[in-house]
Amino acid sequence: MTHARSPLAPAAFPTLPAIAGVTAHVARARYKSWDRCDLTFVALDPGTVVAGVTTQSRCPSPEVEWCRKALTLGSARALVVNAGNANAFTGNRGRAAVEAIAARAAGRLGCLPSDVFVASTGVIGVPLPIDKAEAGIDAALVAPPCTWEDAAAAISTTDTFTKGAVTTAIVDGRSVTLVGIIKGSGMIAPDMATMLGFIFTDAAIEPGFLQAALAEANRASFSCITVDSDTSTSDTVLAFATGQAGNAPLTASEDDGADAFRAALSDLCLQLAHLVVRDGEGATKFIEVAVTGAESDRSAHRVALSIANSPLVKTAIAGEDANWGRVVMAVGKAGEPAERDLLSIRFGDTQVATGGLAVEGYDEAPVTAHLKGSDIEIGVDLGLGEGRATVWTCDLTHGYISINADYRS
Amino acid sequence: MTHARSPLAPAAFPTLPAIAGVTAHVARARYKSWDRCDLTFVALDPGTVVAGVTTQSRCPSPEVEWCRKALTLGSARALVVNAGNANAFTGNRGRAAVEAIAARAAGRLGCLPSDVFVASTGVIGVPLPIDKAEAGIDAALVAPPCTWEDAAAAISTTDTFTKGAVTTAIVDGRSVTLVGIIKGSGMIAPDMATMLGFIFTDAAIEPGFLQAALAEANRASFSCITVDSDTSTSDTVLAFATGQAGNAPLTASEDDGADAFRAALSDLCLQLAHLVVRDGEGATKFIEVAVTGAESDRSAHRVALSIANSPLVKTAIAGEDANWGRVVMAVGKAGEPAERDLLSIRFGDTQVATGGLAVEGYDEAPVTAHLKGSDIEIGVDLGLGEGRATVWTCDLTHGYISINADYRS
Repeated sequence: MTHARSPLAPAAFPTLPAIAGVTAHVARARYKSWDRCDLTFVALDPGTVVAGVTTQSRCPSPEVEWCRKALTLGSARALVVNAGNANAFTGNRGRAAVEAIAARAAGRLGCLPSDVFVASTGVIGVPLPIDKAEAGIDAALVAPPCTWEDAAAAISTTDTFTKGAVTTAIVDGRSVTLVGIIKGSGMIAPDMATMLGFIFTDAAIEPGFLQAALAEANRASFSCITVDSDTSTSDTVLAFATGQAGNAPLTASEDDGADAFRAALSDLCLQLAHLVVRDGEGATKFIEVAVTGAESDRSAHRVALSIANSPLVKTAIAGEDANWGRVVMAVGKAGEPAERDLLSIRFGDTQVATGGLAVEGYDEAPVTAHLKGSDIEIGVDLGLGEGRATVWTCDLTHGYISINADYRS
Repeated sequence: MTHARSPLAPAAFPTLPAIAGVTAHVARARYKSWDRCDLTFVALDPGTVVAGVTTQSRCPSPEVEWCRKALTLGSARALVVNAGNANAFTGNRGRAAVEAIAARAAGRLGCLPSDVFVASTGVIGVPLPIDKAEAGIDAALVAPPCTWEDAAAAISTTDTFTKGAVTTAIVDGRSVTLVGIIKGSGMIAPDMATMLGFIFTDAAIEPGFLQAALAEANRASFSCITVDSDTSTSDTVLAFATGQAGNAPLTASEDDGADAFRAALSDLCLQLAHLVVRDGEGATKFIEVAVTGAESDRSAHRVALSIANSPLVKTAIAGEDANWGRVVMAVGKAGEPAERDLLSIRFGDTQVATGGLAVEGYDEAPVTAHLKGSDIEIGVDLGLGEGRATVWTCDLTHGYISINADYRS
């Protein structure tokens, strides 16, 4: 099943540099009856540290449980990503598959199984076939190293374009590089999609500090996007740092370059998160929802997500309709402090409602022009306090229904 | 804008009896450029008591605020319902319109303005024109009494069929009758839809007890339906009791017939709530989601709503796809206690997953047959406790997108 490339896709996959200590390979494990690489094996030099964030789902995949446990040790030698089968909700057989993958990779590399990180994406409820996974790992290890674009393609499922990004930072007088690849098209479409993101850097960094920096970046990026309000059983973002840039290891915020590294990591995560929204199932508009004037940042975030998840707001944007009444509705239902008569709403740069009612005689021309574009801004000020948050989503179109209503049948 | 009658609609509007003390009239206020009755005036005999529940929205309409205040007094002489303009988010001008309507009706009937209940549904952000409302009230009062079906039609907006129901109960040796009419098509579509429900009974009942009975019935009916997870600024359900059945007034649960009345009211509310779901925008399937084995009823309710609101579950049902992986996902994201390995899922009467994995070799034939029908049951057992809840929703189809993406533009 292939869908047309998203109209919101960038012109091309970016040029991404190599990261010292990272070697990627891809192979055909044939998890589905397709002829494409669907297993990605990333070998990491000794000394690589790792941090990660995983799904909030109460029904996580065994891969997520494995990664959570391995993350407590903080070191990594390999990453194995399977596409076409999420291995979620598969009981003991699913757990056994993850253990077998880690054992196989560890045996080949001469490391501990706990140094092997595993992520899978695809259909739920079918145990990942161990024989295919093991053969895939063996094939990947004898294949020549691949490009980042090859790896980004091999981790994809319903994605309509491959996704990658790069940033740099100066740390301790040295340039460090951060590269990321990601897949995801619905926030989740559990048959075939899920958000998996992998970040690689040559920076030297203590794992606890990497974890803190990743958690901070996640809060303002992956936690601020929604396609359809559905949350995957398998969402995983892992950051690997090989330490080969030669900088003095970052251990705390006071270190030289720590702020630069955190800013670069946040920027990279935001780039990657936006790419997922731009590949939202059926998306024709990229929507930024900015909420200000809330009682707290947390409250602003919830109001923003209520707007971004509202089917009625999303269909209005699809219809290029400045339907601010639906924004009022979504603010009202969020369950957060809000005073109707203090509420202001803008589309793009045009204030359409303020002080609890429509701006009389506002100029509709710039609003109409803004909504005809592909990048839409909705601004809401609650007039209560200093809390603010921004989230990103896409519109809800016939394309979403077509993709998701006709899937397995 | 007219949409085809919902395929889930009942064959016909039911035969509803008169309620002693209640007289309805309809008129053309012409809130929109349409040629239909859009103002409903229900006159209630002296002695009528009232109870009500209203939207949880933090941005309620001035009608909702008016009703909340009037409900504290507990007596009613008139109900005025406007269709085509919700009068929400209209500041002082909206409040003035509600006050003018109450004053006009009170003047005509010789009662207090606080005895007049007002509800409006339609576009947000446009103050209700006072002159049209006043002329409409005057016209309604000189019009002959109308049928329940006429009134149900006059309160409708995007509804594709008129909705009414009836129940009876034996109270204090006398038969009392409860009639209800309702409108609603999206849980909300703020331009034109909203759930407004009105219940009339000849039972004699103390207002505090009527309020308690309505609140109880609401929890298991109107609070258990969702079309699109969006919550109206105007949702209102009012119950009026004229007391003309001649029973000894109900004042508490111990009274003769109190249980029968509460059961009848709950049944009526559930009938009305189901009718709203059956007119869900774009709906082709009526879906019951029953959750058992939760830690509490409240937790079960939240899990059930997470399933019922999931775009991916709803599109799967639209596609007649027994995609239980999406149900797992929706359980996982609900934020409520759940143990993946205790989870069981059924479609209709067929268990498809149990103990955290698919039932091996389950018979797909009855599942497929069930999903091809129009009434779908999804059962989820969490295996944790005794908490249970049932909610109702409809599928998510191209029809929903067509109705909502092309609305104002």
